[in-house]
Amino acid sequence: MLTKTRIKTDLEKILPKKNILSTPEECYVYAQDGTNGITSKVMPDAAVFPETIEEVCNIMRFANEHKIPVVARGAGTNLVGACIPEKGGIVLNFTKMNKILEINKTNMTARVQAGAIVGKIQNEAEKLGLFFPPDPSNMRVSTIGGAIAQSAGGPKTFKYGTTRDYILALKVVLSDGSIIETGSNTIKNATGYHLEQLFIGSEGTLGIVVEAILKLIPKPETTRVVLAYFDDVEAATLSVNKMIEANLRPSTIDFMNKNTLGTIEKFYPAGLLTDKEAALIIEIDGFEASMHTQIKRLEEVLAISGSTDIIITQSKEEQERIWTSRRASFAATAKLKPDVISNDLIVPRENISKLVSGVDEICSKYGLPVSIVGHIGDGNIHPQIALDLNNEEEARNYEKAKSEMYDLTLKLNGTLSAEHGIGSEKRMFMEKAVDNNTLDYMKKIKKVFDPNNILNPDKIFNIE
Amino acid sequence: MLTKTRIKTDLEKILPKKNILSTPEECYVYAQDGTNGITSKVMPDAAVFPETIEEVCNIMRFANEHKIPVVARGAGTNLVGACIPEKGGIVLNFTKMNKILEINKTNMTARVQAGAIVGKIQNEAEKLGLFFPPDPSNMRVSTIGGAIAQSAGGPKTFKYGTTRDYILALKVVLSDGSIIETGSNTIKNATGYHLEQLFIGSEGTLGIVVEAILKLIPKPETTRVVLAYFDDVEAATLSVNKMIEANLRPSTIDFMNKNTLGTIEKFYPAGLLTDKEAALIIEIDGFEASMHTQIKRLEEVLAISGSTDIIITQSKEEQERIWTSRRASFAATAKLKPDVISNDLIVPRENISKLVSGVDEICSKYGLPVSIVGHIGDGNIHPQIALDLNNEEEARNYEKAKSEMYDLTLKLNGTLSAEHGIGSEKRMFMEKAVDNNTLDYMKKIKKVFDPNNILNPDKIFNIE
Repeated sequence: MLTKTRIKTDLEKILPKKNILSTPEECYVYAQDGTNGITSKVMPDAAVFPETIEEVCNIMRFANEHKIPVVARGAGTNLVGACIPEKGGIVLNFTKMNKILEINKTNMTARVQAGAIVGKIQNEAEKLGLFFPPDPSNMRVSTIGGAIAQSAGGPKTFKYGTTRDYILALKVVLSDGSIIETGSNTIKNATGYHLEQLFIGSEGTLGIVVEAILKLIPKPETTRVVLAYFDDVEAATLSVNKMIEANLRPSTIDFMNKNTLGTIEKFYPAGLLTDKEAALIIEIDGFEASMHTQIKRLEEVLAISGSTDIIITQSKEEQERIWTSRRASFAATAKLKPDVISNDLIVPRENISKLVSGVDEICSKYGLPVSIVGHIGDGNIHPQIALDLNNEEEARNYEKAKSEMYDLTLKLNGTLSAEHGIGSEKRMFMEKAVDNNTLDYMKKIKKVFDPNNILNPDKIFNIE
Repeated sequence: MLTKTRIKTDLEKILPKKNILSTPEECYVYAQDGTNGITSKVMPDAAVFPETIEEVCNIMRFANEHKIPVVARGAGTNLVGACIPEKGGIVLNFTKMNKILEINKTNMTARVQAGAIVGKIQNEAEKLGLFFPPDPSNMRVSTIGGAIAQSAGGPKTFKYGTTRDYILALKVVLSDGSIIETGSNTIKNATGYHLEQLFIGSEGTLGIVVEAILKLIPKPETTRVVLAYFDDVEAATLSVNKMIEANLRPSTIDFMNKNTLGTIEKFYPAGLLTDKEAALIIEIDGFEASMHTQIKRLEEVLAISGSTDIIITQSKEEQERIWTSRRASFAATAKLKPDVISNDLIVPRENISKLVSGVDEICSKYGLPVSIVGHIGDGNIHPQIALDLNNEEEARNYEKAKSEMYDLTLKLNGTLSAEHGIGSEKRMFMEKAVDNNTLDYMKKIKKVFDPNNILNPDKIFNIE
């Protein structure tokens, strides 16, 4: 492998100097990502900020020739160590390729660079009466490239699906610096293999997405939020079934457990009821004309299901207040201990209350405070665990708890990740979750696209 | 390659005799599929009807060892020659693996065998208040395996997407007889590469799907159909933009041109207005409480857009009558000449009226009667062309018209297929539609999964 100095001077032939960082001080931040407590033991050799696709191609050609690892990075908000340059090399940032190139109202599509901010895409679409549903909670800063790499979801997936459902086409720079354009500019496409689908959720291990064509949909006319409390977690989860039976299709059915309610109120008081076992945030949308029916029906369902307190928001401000307090759960939990780690568990919905109580038991066994929030309509929860990673015993306990949580998830017919990805944090569980033959074929696909194993090496799984 | 007799005797070690057909008379029907006028020049050596996954595995092991081509087949309704056994070998039928194994109301999922009928899945889901939206027009007979292989859509894709959007997991028998289980039993999944997405739309060239887990959604409470006539095709297409601006999101926006209206009325009179240039069938759904608003708003939009006659259906029967006449367009066009071929063109919606008029011009230049129907909300039309394939000049003219239609589609920024696939009928255009590098990677993927090129060989593209 080339020396750090040689990498720098060679990169300077590809990009302007101002777009290359290479001192340890400059690179330190790129040794980390949003995953709490993890820093790469190896510093990146350089962090680069290309401004054009051509520069990305040239960087990849250079890296591939010299077998230098390349880690693509958007805002670095991921929670599984997906952007940690464990083997050093080049961190390829998309901060300067962040344009929304076109929003086409007639075609209901957006063409965006990989570094475009998800929240900004949403806002620009809304100005034209259109809607880009994926809403990961970091969307005000996170990039579409990251959302594609991690197959990001968000509260609205119950009705609207994840990022995957809104990708029509991708322009991808491969490990050899060549480009493929996969997918099409049309709403439907049955022209050969959907290679674009391989890149979605591949965490930068198969290619570098530089541009995407997104599918947009007409914006729902109205949105209303209902907050419902329960004395019992299972009753809360069972109410979802009754909603479906009543022909309701909320856009969001989100969940907070008792610990979460208490922790939020402790640090960011918002008037939540802290003596309840569970709260559901239910968002309904559609025509204003249907709101009365939907809310009335929802109230009935919640009442039959044993909800003790039902709050129907009357204004945008009230809705926003509820969502703000829900989103504060991570920050509030972070105040309990120096560190906080958000996990991502998903099971078929019939097993969700078993998962919630199991996670509670596991965390309490190891003395780890946990706020359980999540998208319960999807069977997906995010246990947010507070701990001190510098305390060796706590760190060890967390590792045990994590292992048991994922074992439980798999036992309950779930999978390793719903919407955060695998990265470095869950790869040790991949063999438990995916059968050997399937895993072998994933590795064969990796070899096709990245024979030198330079693209985010060893993320998702280790290559022997 | 083994002799026909040897293939038969070896297959008899794998399946009961009653599930193997091998005489030319028995096999003739499996030399064809729903594609008009195409019969394989080579007869299949055998048509087999496995009853278990193990039998499928054994068949594949046998075929792979002896490099015998295998063509998987559901109901054979496809329209691009995807099931034609051009190189002989074994036609693997899923008629006897047609069970709906489970519909789980809580999880909103269905587990089905590849041969399960799409319409039956829909019906069974509906009995539980659930909804499986993909509705290809052949759904009363077509299988889910075929829908997955061809990435089938249907009128409802405007709101609900295609088959691809409802596949959570696939069990696939690979060319070597091994099994992979890809995807998960959960609504979201960010666990490694989504190999299942590769198989969707791969037309049986990468593996044999034997089982699928489908995503279901809550059934919309009410559906209403509106029929609107226009004196001008462009006005009809522009009305779609106005619907979106008015916050409407119909489940279907289907289209019939003047020729279609006339041809249907000629053979299956239903009271359609034959002097109009275009008719739109617009289906709206949702809460009964929103219907008045939706219909009123739709009427306004249609009036502003220049619709001359607007029919709002008042009953299920009236809705069904409109859909029946729309579906009769293929049969009606078939009465004009001995053969009829349905094409599948898609462009970004901004170019749809150019596509419609261009197709009309091309067909009229070659003297080919054409009924243009389609899912205009998606930018997708199906020109149904009547001809006599035994008349050499007509057949030649059709080939020229077809080539020009696809050239036009690509010029208008479209792609080769929206929902029928490529099969043998469009593979000659693949290099025009897909860039070389992307096509190379498709071929590399094919090689990973099927190194001996025995799975539906040379469909989608030729392997050198």
